[in-house]
Amino acid sequence: MSRFHELLQLAGEHVNTTLDGLLEVPDGHEGRLYEAMRYTALAGGKGFRPFLCLASAQIFDAPEPAAIRVASAIECIHCYSLIHDDLPCMDDDDMRRGKPALHKAFDEATAILAGDALISLAFEILTDAATHDTATTRLELVAGLARASGMQGMVGGQMIDIMAARDMLDAGGLTRLQKMKTGALISFAVDAGAVLGGAEPSDRHALAGFAHDIGLAYQIADDVLDVEGDADHLGKSVGKDAAQDKSTFVSLLGVARAREQALQLSHQAVGYLDVFGARADPLREAAAFVIQRRS
Amino acid sequence: MSRFHELLQLAGEHVNTTLDGLLEVPDGHEGRLYEAMRYTALAGGKGFRPFLCLASAQIFDAPEPAAIRVASAIECIHCYSLIHDDLPCMDDDDMRRGKPALHKAFDEATAILAGDALISLAFEILTDAATHDTATTRLELVAGLARASGMQGMVGGQMIDIMAARDMLDAGGLTRLQKMKTGALISFAVDAGAVLGGAEPSDRHALAGFAHDIGLAYQIADDVLDVEGDADHLGKSVGKDAAQDKSTFVSLLGVARAREQALQLSHQAVGYLDVFGARADPLREAAAFVIQRRS
Repeated sequence: MSRFHELLQLAGEHVNTTLDGLLEVPDGHEGRLYEAMRYTALAGGKGFRPFLCLASAQIFDAPEPAAIRVASAIECIHCYSLIHDDLPCMDDDDMRRGKPALHKAFDEATAILAGDALISLAFEILTDAATHDTATTRLELVAGLARASGMQGMVGGQMIDIMAARDMLDAGGLTRLQKMKTGALISFAVDAGAVLGGAEPSDRHALAGFAHDIGLAYQIADDVLDVEGDADHLGKSVGKDAAQDKSTFVSLLGVARAREQALQLSHQAVGYLDVFGARADPLREAAAFVIQRRS
Repeated sequence: MSRFHELLQLAGEHVNTTLDGLLEVPDGHEGRLYEAMRYTALAGGKGFRPFLCLASAQIFDAPEPAAIRVASAIECIHCYSLIHDDLPCMDDDDMRRGKPALHKAFDEATAILAGDALISLAFEILTDAATHDTATTRLELVAGLARASGMQGMVGGQMIDIMAARDMLDAGGLTRLQKMKTGALISFAVDAGAVLGGAEPSDRHALAGFAHDIGLAYQIADDVLDVEGDADHLGKSVGKDAAQDKSTFVSLLGVARAREQALQLSHQAVGYLDVFGARADPLREAAAFVIQRRS
């Protein structure tokens, strides 16, 4: 395993430990809700967003335990989006992370509630004093996550995605969709580490450029994987975009040009990291990872 | 119209104006999401929770514009819970506030997303400097709303409610369900006004007692309305609890004793308000309203 994959796995494990502690199953009937939240949130995601947050925090010497808490909040939001997106009335996916989707393993009502509760949990985690000792910083994180996850970010993007299945988007529209649906949370993950470390605006600006480009590269690579990937590796179904007549970077550009575009974006992303020297090496490896990943 | 009903309506109008301003429909495909959020959030709810927040804020001379923002955040959470609870896989209600439920007027996917986006919007509203000039206070509000809305509050309560349809609860279990499912947000609404006004802990403690009792009285009255109410007045279907074999205060106590219990709780609630003198009159009227309401 490469050093980068070790860091990715470690980020995932840190988040797992944190969420495991926060989601102790109570005795009452609501225990089922906690079980459902655990089913997805502790299922071992790729750890990509948590990793970005930890790697960014490290550049600015932010304490790791704080960064792990923020990464855990981000993972809650990411997991809730997967749970709701997988529902029959949405993308209707039966498999997720190599096992039945939550609404299959439990039921639809429990899946909706588990997603809802993960949103509140994310904000609760950020407000706790253990996340940062100043209220202003915690509040800035809450505001950033609320924006990234809501109507102007992730949820707005998912709405566009659903509508776009009927009304094909051009490359500009598709880029906008990606920036909202997946880019906003990736950008928040990178920015959050900097916020925790009290980074200067110019440094946050550079990281925003990096996050924008790897976010887009990540999505293009995802579209390529949906065409060329292997369901066993991905732990979810493939070929769904084409089956649903969705606009994707592959349907617009073809596989070869889509790959090329992802490669260019990845190089461009790394350019933003020069100011940080060797401390940004993990983020450089992330930029390489997004275009090489198989799952 | 009584003075109290005027205040209730005014609270609803203030919240409507605020959310109308925040939910300006954009041109893109995500416009549909905003339309869906507006459909429920601007539908003119009873304004009960917003009223509680404004009435509590007034006791402590908190600025009204700030209290209206917090009331709007609370209404977002309340509306999202109605949207998700009405879904076919949950309570399967076709009517809400006198018109088709959101998933009927739009579709299920849009309804789920509109609910999700209302959660993020609620937290975004609270983080804005217009809500309060100190970060600590805004953060306290965010933390309180996150707890009230999540697994230990509203969503946890809804999970219990779903499970209880199969496994009947006793009065203790039902009281716990109510405290989580509807009581937590009502309590937050009352406390939030006090937080905005920088209230002393002893005053917040008294208000917590008041909120606990009217929250429970409100739910008992709701159960009575489900048996004796009129669908036209309620704007939603009636008789659903019995049809679903749910434990309710009426099924456990009978209508007469349930009414008596609600009355006692309402009197007890008013007892907590003595320390506030005439400034708490609107809250006293609220305690009378919860047991007299017809919808």
